[in-house]
Order: sequence, then C-alpha cells, then structure tokens
Amino acid sequence: MNDSGLLIVVSGPSGAGKGTICSALREQFPNIQYSISMTTRKPRPGEVDGVNYYFADNARFEQLLAEDAFLEHAKVYDHYYGTPKKYVYQMLEEGKHVMLEIDIQGAMQVKKRYPQGVFIYIVPPSRDVLEKRLRGRQTDSDDVIAGRLAKARAELDWIDRYDYVIVNDELEKAVDEAASILKAEQCKVTRNAHRIAHTKELYK
Amino acid sequence: MNDSGLLIVVSGPSGAGKGTICSALREQFPNIQYSISMTTRKPRPGEVDGVNYYFADNARFEQLLAEDAFLEHAKVYDHYYGTPKKYVYQMLEEGKHVMLEIDIQGAMQVKKRYPQGVFIYIVPPSRDVLEKRLRGRQTDSDDVIAGRLAKARAELDWIDRYDYVIVNDELEKAVDEAASILKAEQCKVTRNAHRIAHTKELYK
Repeated sequence: MNDSGLLIVVSGPSGAGKGTICSALREQFPNIQYSISMTTRKPRPGEVDGVNYYFADNARFEQLLAEDAFLEHAKVYDHYYGTPKKYVYQMLEEGKHVMLEIDIQGAMQVKKRYPQGVFIYIVPPSRDVLEKRLRGRQTDSDDVIAGRLAKARAELDWIDRYDYVIVNDELEKAVDEAASILKAEQCKVTRNAHRIAHTKELYK
Repeated sequence: MNDSGLLIVVSGPSGAGKGTICSALREQFPNIQYSISMTTRKPRPGEVDGVNYYFADNARFEQLLAEDAFLEHAKVYDHYYGTPKKYVYQMLEEGKHVMLEIDIQGAMQVKKRYPQGVFIYIVPPSRDVLEKRLRGRQTDSDDVIAGRLAKARAELDWIDRYDYVIVNDELEKAVDEAASILKAEQCKVTRNAHRIAHTKELYK
C-alpha cells in the first residue's frame, strides 16, 4: 500500500505565470500526471480521444453530470468541459500527483469534492507589473487588457479560499516556492499514514 | 504592519540529525532567531544572563509558572528549564522565526499554547540505521544505546501529533525537506493576511 498522491490545483489571473510555473513543476516532479478533460466540442485535426481530451456527446456528458462524475465542469460557448473524477482518483490512489491549472470557479468546485487537495493561487505583485506583462505579450488589445486587469483585481478576494499564495515577483523564487509547497505537502503527517506505519515496522 | 513569523518546533530521537538539520536551516534562513531559555541552575563559567540563559531563582521561576508565562517547561534533576513566552512572542510579532529543538513533552506543551506553530518530527528510517548512527558517535555505552532505541520506538506513536514528518535517510534530502516546509508555511494564505492586503492595495 502507498499513500495517496497530491491533487494540486493552481489558479491565478492571465499573466500570473501559471503556465511557466506548472511546466517547471512537471520537470522537477516526474510523478505529476496530466489530467485529461472531457468535452462535448468536436475533435480538432490531430486531437486523439483519451489523449488530448475524452470526447463525448451532450447526452453522455449530461448523464455523467447527473451522476456527479466530475471534479469540476463548465459550459463555454455551448460546449461542456469537465474533469472526470474517475481517472484523477485512480492516479491519486496509485500515489501519483495530478495537477489542474483551472480558474477560480473550477477550483471551488474541486475544493467542495476534494478538500484535501493543495490549492495554490499565483498572483503578480501589482497591477502595474501585471499590465506590463500583458502588454509585453503583444497579443491582447487595450480593451482585453483592461478587462483582464479588472478581473485580476476582483479575483483577489478569492485568495482566502486557497491554501497557499505565491506572489510571482521573480520567476525563479516563485518556482522554488511552488516546488517547496509540493515537497512540504509530501511531508505532511496526515498524508503519510502508510509511510509512518511502514517506519514503525522497521523499529520492531 | 507585517505578518507573524513562524514558531518552528523540531523534535525527534537522539541520533535523528535534528542538530545538523536545524543548523542548516539557520544558515538558509537568517530570519530564524534563537530562543533563550530560563533556568534555575547556576550559571557555568562564561555563561551570560540573557545570552545563554535567563538565570532565575526557584521563587521567581515558580511565580512565572503560576502566571503561565512559559511556552513549555520541565524540571530536570531539581532544576527548572523553560521557554518564556514574552521574548518568543515579541520576535514572532516582529516577523522573525523562532526555532525550538525540544522533546515531545515540551512540544506538546507548546502546541497547546501556540497551535499555529509548525511542528516537525525527524526520524531515522529504521532502528538499524539509528543504532548504527548512535554506535558511530562512540559516546554512549551499550546500555545507553539500548535505552535510546527503546525510547525512539516508543515515541513513534507521537508522530501523529506533529504537522510534518521527515524521514532522515539522506541528510541532504532531509535538509531540503525541512527548508521546503518553512518556505511553504511562509506561503500559507492564513499566514499572509497583511501581505495579501498590501497586494490588494497595489491593484487599486
């Protein structure tokens, strides 16, 4: 028997550096698995069922919704997207970590169903820094940037619902903090029942 | 205003490597302060009041005990030893960390008075490894070693009362885990009320 893996939930505004930090974590922790979402949108060229997404029709998705089979889900432009519990729970039971990079609404749904997850909020140090990063991308119009900034500000009130906050001022420090959170969670007594029992055996 | 520092409580059997790990933490976190104990034993040559210990007579110590002025205390061979709350709380309020390397009885007293402390238990991976380490020191007789091993085994049942367990198999990994615990605790949302409020100001 092994102890359960960590369900790591990462949120933060667009421009917070979530993607970069999550990629760095995947490199440092090969034990982190990708979760595969289910969606009702049509596969795009090259997308493979069970690899990029689980593709399903509306009836199937709604049946699974009725069965509370999702950790979280959302409807975007008439299409459903969701994280099926089954696959995630199976990996956690095997002692693997699963990382979800999702928005606050999704994270709160996960928290209700799996409160023992590790909930991390990543935030740029200030509005000015965030604006500079968003402008630096040169992908968004002024209107889109204004919208993202207003959203980032409004969402700050949700930080209290997370376990950890990383103020991403310096990327290297932010990555180190994220990695430290995972290592610390791996040392939590409440997550090591089997390991402690095993150690006790080695003292007999 | 700043957020409170961490009260870090480290326990583990003799031979677990507590001292080495705590020294490494002090190097990595210059913010960690020494706590100064109060004792009723006489100063030894060279010991300075308020530096090595606070020296007090029995009447004074017992008066402070009656006032619940200690985070933890013990009586060893007719002498009292205790950690005065006042000095520790003052450093924590200033945002400094305080580390206490104390036994389980002391740690449980601290936990009652300051449950928001960070309680870490360090344990060698097995009885055999611990025995080898104790013998390697060449300081203890067979009887003393047998006593330490029996004590280490009996104390394993107390791990559940700690927040974190570090199985010190490889020193470098154990130090990294201890440092990660401190960094993660520094990122806890519940410990960053002032920092989060400050960040919100920077989004206005």
